[in-house]
Amino acid sequence: MKSVIKNSLSLTVLATSLLAVGAYAAPANDPATLAQIRDNAMKSDWAYERLADLTDLVGPRLSGSAGAAAAVEQVADAMRKLGAKVTLQPVKVPHWVRGAESAELVEYTGRPAGITQKVVLTALGGSGATPAAGLTAPVVIVRSFEELKAKGAQVKGSIVLFDVAFDQEMANRGHAGPAYGHGAGFRFAGPKLAADMGAAAALVRSVGGADYRIPHTGATGVVEGARIPAAAVTSEDAMLMSRLSVRGPLKMHLTLTPQNLPDADSFNVIADWPGTDKADEVVIVSGHLDSWDLATGAHDDGTGVAGAMGVIDTLKKLNLKPRRTIRVIAWMNEENGTRGGKAYFEANKDKLDKHFAAIESDSGGGRPFGFIGSVTPPMVKYFAPLKDVLEPIGAGIFERRDIAGAADTGPLERAGVPVFEPLVDSSAYFNYHHTPADTLDKVNPYELKRHVAVMTSLTWYLANMDENIGRVAPQQD
Amino acid sequence: MKSVIKNSLSLTVLATSLLAVGAYAAPANDPATLAQIRDNAMKSDWAYERLADLTDLVGPRLSGSAGAAAAVEQVADAMRKLGAKVTLQPVKVPHWVRGAESAELVEYTGRPAGITQKVVLTALGGSGATPAAGLTAPVVIVRSFEELKAKGAQVKGSIVLFDVAFDQEMANRGHAGPAYGHGAGFRFAGPKLAADMGAAAALVRSVGGADYRIPHTGATGVVEGARIPAAAVTSEDAMLMSRLSVRGPLKMHLTLTPQNLPDADSFNVIADWPGTDKADEVVIVSGHLDSWDLATGAHDDGTGVAGAMGVIDTLKKLNLKPRRTIRVIAWMNEENGTRGGKAYFEANKDKLDKHFAAIESDSGGGRPFGFIGSVTPPMVKYFAPLKDVLEPIGAGIFERRDIAGAADTGPLERAGVPVFEPLVDSSAYFNYHHTPADTLDKVNPYELKRHVAVMTSLTWYLANMDENIGRVAPQQD
Repeated sequence: MKSVIKNSLSLTVLATSLLAVGAYAAPANDPATLAQIRDNAMKSDWAYERLADLTDLVGPRLSGSAGAAAAVEQVADAMRKLGAKVTLQPVKVPHWVRGAESAELVEYTGRPAGITQKVVLTALGGSGATPAAGLTAPVVIVRSFEELKAKGAQVKGSIVLFDVAFDQEMANRGHAGPAYGHGAGFRFAGPKLAADMGAAAALVRSVGGADYRIPHTGATGVVEGARIPAAAVTSEDAMLMSRLSVRGPLKMHLTLTPQNLPDADSFNVIADWPGTDKADEVVIVSGHLDSWDLATGAHDDGTGVAGAMGVIDTLKKLNLKPRRTIRVIAWMNEENGTRGGKAYFEANKDKLDKHFAAIESDSGGGRPFGFIGSVTPPMVKYFAPLKDVLEPIGAGIFERRDIAGAADTGPLERAGVPVFEPLVDSSAYFNYHHTPADTLDKVNPYELKRHVAVMTSLTWYLANMDENIGRVAPQQD
Repeated sequence: MKSVIKNSLSLTVLATSLLAVGAYAAPANDPATLAQIRDNAMKSDWAYERLADLTDLVGPRLSGSAGAAAAVEQVADAMRKLGAKVTLQPVKVPHWVRGAESAELVEYTGRPAGITQKVVLTALGGSGATPAAGLTAPVVIVRSFEELKAKGAQVKGSIVLFDVAFDQEMANRGHAGPAYGHGAGFRFAGPKLAADMGAAAALVRSVGGADYRIPHTGATGVVEGARIPAAAVTSEDAMLMSRLSVRGPLKMHLTLTPQNLPDADSFNVIADWPGTDKADEVVIVSGHLDSWDLATGAHDDGTGVAGAMGVIDTLKKLNLKPRRTIRVIAWMNEENGTRGGKAYFEANKDKLDKHFAAIESDSGGGRPFGFIGSVTPPMVKYFAPLKDVLEPIGAGIFERRDIAGAADTGPLERAGVPVFEPLVDSSAYFNYHHTPADTLDKVNPYELKRHVAVMTSLTWYLANMDENIGRVAPQQD
């Protein structure tokens, strides 16, 4: 199944078009069909069962791991069973493997003889390694890039801690994404900047609102040549270090032994549900299949993948054939490279005009309120019938944005393809995201049904629109 | 400081009584003094600072550890600085040391080739060890002792999981203690019962309401000769195992390498604040100094110890001398043996008539609503003035009980000494209790002030009462 996607997809599209002409009437985007989709999705356990398969049987699936490979097979099999045309698109992915990780404060003012304080942490994806026996260095705590730069000479040879608290209040007010973005900026850029200044290692305060002393991993931007050890400490341990630093200088013994291996072979799973009269046009509906290694990635992004898969299951049960081809994609490597999204874009950049729209779900399985989409303002009115049908399940909001800004569909969107996402309550999402606690029990089966209802209704609607929604705003300036 | 407590205390009492006659008038239990105590406690950071010293500088302090020894010194020093008469009462304590701990499900129905599922767990105090390379065995899941017994032959050679969920709803309704007691019963008795039936190891579902995949440790009752490995799995992992068991049989590879070392030397820290005209009578105010090893034991029971210490600080600042001697005790080994409480009882069993009452705080530093006490019903009316003075800080409730049932003062209470405890909101307490997350940041400094206000007001009131509150109910039947 390693054929070049370009040829494979062209054949699929051709075969489907021929089939469609004979067998199916192209249905309208009528309210009755939309209501039927919504109501059937709200009754089905199928997506939750797929999520259970993915998380309980496969578990963690970091790019390059055995779990990622097993997940590719499992999702491809499930889509084949539905009758979708499945293609595995080859993607070369970073292969980073967690090692031992431990830390303790070995010197601080007021330390009783024989006592060290444990610091709970976890390596960031892409982190370099300490010697196997660890390294010992002074700790320099900063709360901004400016403060880091101002500390100049002190940074060299030290372990830098970026102690920037996650703004849970902001998340509670409905701005979890920006709250996360702020912290993730330090996580991604901070260690590289510290490395450039000669730091021995870099730590960030976990980006997330959990207060159960669990570390939140994630990607960091250290690069070969200056790949220093980099880890996230729990918010509790960041606070401990800050409190102790008020009493006097700190020294830490740090052991992190991850490995950065050569790029590994992996795949995007692409499952086409052929269109009818507009089969050559594509509506993507997607989530990412890889997860971090600490948990089974139920919310991030099992719910996105299961939700996208549920679109086909719902339509199949209703024997509904879309006008445009619906393309389910389970992206590989969103977490530490977005190589899947990039590979898809490269293989399809001469067919972007046939990409009507792309849906990506990657904000967890919290309660959906509606959807967002990067269409131009004049297009908003065309979505009124969709809003109407989602309103009875509390998901009738449509927020237009200039840029949706999702990761895997980012290259498509930047080239003009409108991107849609479910609009969900993610106020608690970043408490679990990238931690060992992102497990199946955190996903509310009822909300996942609502999620599938939104995803399927939106996908169906886009696949059958008479109106051309055009390209995203920046392309039309 | 290893003199026999009996002699040391007698000398203290004698010296204090002589001093009191000359220098101090014995104050009445007047409302103005009580209000002054309450208001000064509500303004002081002293107890929180001691809690920070204990948790930030010493950290975890499991019996027999360097942390426990350092905590004894730190608390004794702080009490000496206040001018209290400090005695270290020798206590022989169990010495259990955590080792490596890991587990994975190596066989289950639907397992993709090359995949195993990690199970997060932590050894229970007193657990035996697996071989260094671990053991592999089938998993038998039960939800009651009856089910375990019914599974008879299946248990032999297996790893038993007691999958009993913590009743957080019950805790939310104000019954956290009974909710905990139910789960802790399985934790303590389950592994021993499984061992008696030939199990290779025993697991319990963590007793607590946290949903962040953190395991809750605690003492278990396995005994020499059948000291099987015993651990608490997170609620998430218990649910995973239960879900997978529906698909088919499970097999686990389990590694736990704790050590049960010979009993170690440790101490109760006893700090007397001498009484005046009734100096030979004692009111104990106490918390336990040991903690589990996973965290710094801020709530369990740093707040109890800091609260008891804060009694003396508050009275000293106000230059108030009690009629009865106030005895602060930081008990050793509440968590896995209550050897401190037993040793104190043994050393004082011929002086119980001089123990007017004992206060123990070990339900965490949540918001205090008042206090409980095991006095007989006719005694309740005598506490009206105390309730009145605590009412303005929302802590005016007095719940009389036949038995308070606290651990360290248990032997005293069973012998007739009335035991009092602060009545606190412990609805969230068991989410953190015995986990890595029981850290200083979880303690609300304002609630700790209120805690000290309750502890000091109650201690002072008991130390100055004109009425004899007698013995607990069972002794008077």
